[in-house]
Amino acid sequence: MSWKTPEVPSLDLVLDPVLRAAIDQKTKPLGALGELEQIARRIGLIQGTVKPALNKPTILVFAGDHGLADEGVSPYPKAVTAQMVLNFLGGGAAINVFARQHGLELIVVDAGVASDLPTHPRLRAEKIGRGTRSALREPAMTQAELDRALEAGAKLVRELSEGGTNAVLLGEMGIGNTSAATLMVSALLPSDVADSVGRGAGHDDAGMERKLDILRRVQARHGKISKPLEALRVLGGYEIAMLVGVILEAASRRFVIVNDGFISTAALLVAARLRPAVLEYTFFAHVSAEAAHRRVVSALGGRPLLDLGMRLGEGSGGAVAWPLLVSAVKFLNEMATFASAGVSERST
Amino acid sequence: MSWKTPEVPSLDLVLDPVLRAAIDQKTKPLGALGELEQIARRIGLIQGTVKPALNKPTILVFAGDHGLADEGVSPYPKAVTAQMVLNFLGGGAAINVFARQHGLELIVVDAGVASDLPTHPRLRAEKIGRGTRSALREPAMTQAELDRALEAGAKLVRELSEGGTNAVLLGEMGIGNTSAATLMVSALLPSDVADSVGRGAGHDDAGMERKLDILRRVQARHGKISKPLEALRVLGGYEIAMLVGVILEAASRRFVIVNDGFISTAALLVAARLRPAVLEYTFFAHVSAEAAHRRVVSALGGRPLLDLGMRLGEGSGGAVAWPLLVSAVKFLNEMATFASAGVSERST
Repeated sequence: MSWKTPEVPSLDLVLDPVLRAAIDQKTKPLGALGELEQIARRIGLIQGTVKPALNKPTILVFAGDHGLADEGVSPYPKAVTAQMVLNFLGGGAAINVFARQHGLELIVVDAGVASDLPTHPRLRAEKIGRGTRSALREPAMTQAELDRALEAGAKLVRELSEGGTNAVLLGEMGIGNTSAATLMVSALLPSDVADSVGRGAGHDDAGMERKLDILRRVQARHGKISKPLEALRVLGGYEIAMLVGVILEAASRRFVIVNDGFISTAALLVAARLRPAVLEYTFFAHVSAEAAHRRVVSALGGRPLLDLGMRLGEGSGGAVAWPLLVSAVKFLNEMATFASAGVSERST
Repeated sequence: MSWKTPEVPSLDLVLDPVLRAAIDQKTKPLGALGELEQIARRIGLIQGTVKPALNKPTILVFAGDHGLADEGVSPYPKAVTAQMVLNFLGGGAAINVFARQHGLELIVVDAGVASDLPTHPRLRAEKIGRGTRSALREPAMTQAELDRALEAGAKLVRELSEGGTNAVLLGEMGIGNTSAATLMVSALLPSDVADSVGRGAGHDDAGMERKLDILRRVQARHGKISKPLEALRVLGGYEIAMLVGVILEAASRRFVIVNDGFISTAALLVAARLRPAVLEYTFFAHVSAEAAHRRVVSALGGRPLLDLGMRLGEGSGGAVAWPLLVSAVKFLNEMATFASAGVSERST
């Protein structure tokens, strides 16, 4: 099937004065809840109500392998992608811990893991291929593969929407995918790849040199790429493409979207180039220790909620930041007003 | 009764290598959980175990009035302190919302509210006086009052400890208490009062000028004060003194202590001058929008978890940051290891 990018409407600001007034009447000094007030207001605008609710929030972890991993861009063997998927299914990964802590649903998607995976109630099989092709030698995906991946992400969101979910948290796993994200970001922002390359899952200096050399050779192989879907197809990965599909469809359905780290932000960059309004539905959970993340977040105008030096992926930053969004919605719904609590307002 | 500052031991580092190894064996790249790993390690050291647990965490909100409020340092009338206590008891304040969200116990303490308050199961009556004296005219408290306030805070911690609590979150409410905290910080750090004065609950420019003028006159009245308990007695407040008692006693009992905003940090500054090791038990929840807070946190070597422009007090910053501490403890207790999950470790 061919992919058609959904329309994403800008937020309707008609309720903004009502939301501002509701927040200012709460028993607290004006503006004293800081960023939480902005979050509450924006979720109200997204949902078009002064009584917003976050329903069945779901973490989506897309797993995929990368041809580039075989070229030596990661200190971990490619097999770790599949091993970590099994860890997600067994409940032992960081994202499982944080999902349980906050009552978040967790769906793991085989977007294109290189090995066979078992059937499992929490694993969604959407394998586009057994890992992408090596971008050092040819485009990572074909156009047909890209379209299928985008559609798989969008379809998942449609199903979630029908089930009552109105918030998704973006997550991913894939050995080599910081390299794919680095290449995409360097193409789209555009910048020297050395400005965006990071230690990923943990390189030493020699590993960094090797990674940088490979990425430069990938760039030389493909030349300048400025179209977002072309950068995704040639340099990206199946899991990143599904995230792009998720972001576009979720925003078109007025979901709350929680962005995570460097890789999901590369997906967001593609989605925002196609439909800038997706950013109005997106909250930036954190800024990661991956050096380039701060630059991309800034380019997208994001204000990260957390800055804790995390760089794990899996959606872990989003999950850890999630209770801040809940706090925002709860204070708006549950706090007393000056009038209802009989508290005097300020005199000046 | 006379106050005796409890001894506070430094952390015993004997378990540190064991904790580091336990964290590094989790299924994640080395260091990938960033600051959460440091939190987990420190809570392990505080509790002397590789399986730490946060038991019956309790927010303590101390409420007190200030003689300085009658001089015009706040845009809110003094009556708001008592009104907000009633709001806390009614469950309508921000701190109630966040306490419910995270399953935190909440104890409100009348440390010295200027009006009579009803008896209530969630209100602890420890009224030292009906508001402090105006520091513009005389010391805010007598030595006997200070000792009683410190002891009241410490006694509460002893009772909580006997009930199984091992973590406290610091909170306060008191019209005028940003002025008291500003004076204390300016005396102890020491610095010009203009560097520490902030908008508090929300001054306009004229209000700021008036506040600054009053604070300068208070300083002129009392001269240089460098002893921490003397700064607390002459310039502080009953609720701040009880927080000092809480911090010292909680650290002496190896509690996890969660610091909040500018006022609780002024209390922490006093406690840390008496027993520097209290800082080893303390987590800095956030850095507030109150201008001087960042400077004091930095002087104490604190690394705030959140930077969301909050400036509400009540313990709201601590409560909102609390799930981050829970995330840290949970990943340490619940995540699989490379060996248990059958995940390959890095090759380099």
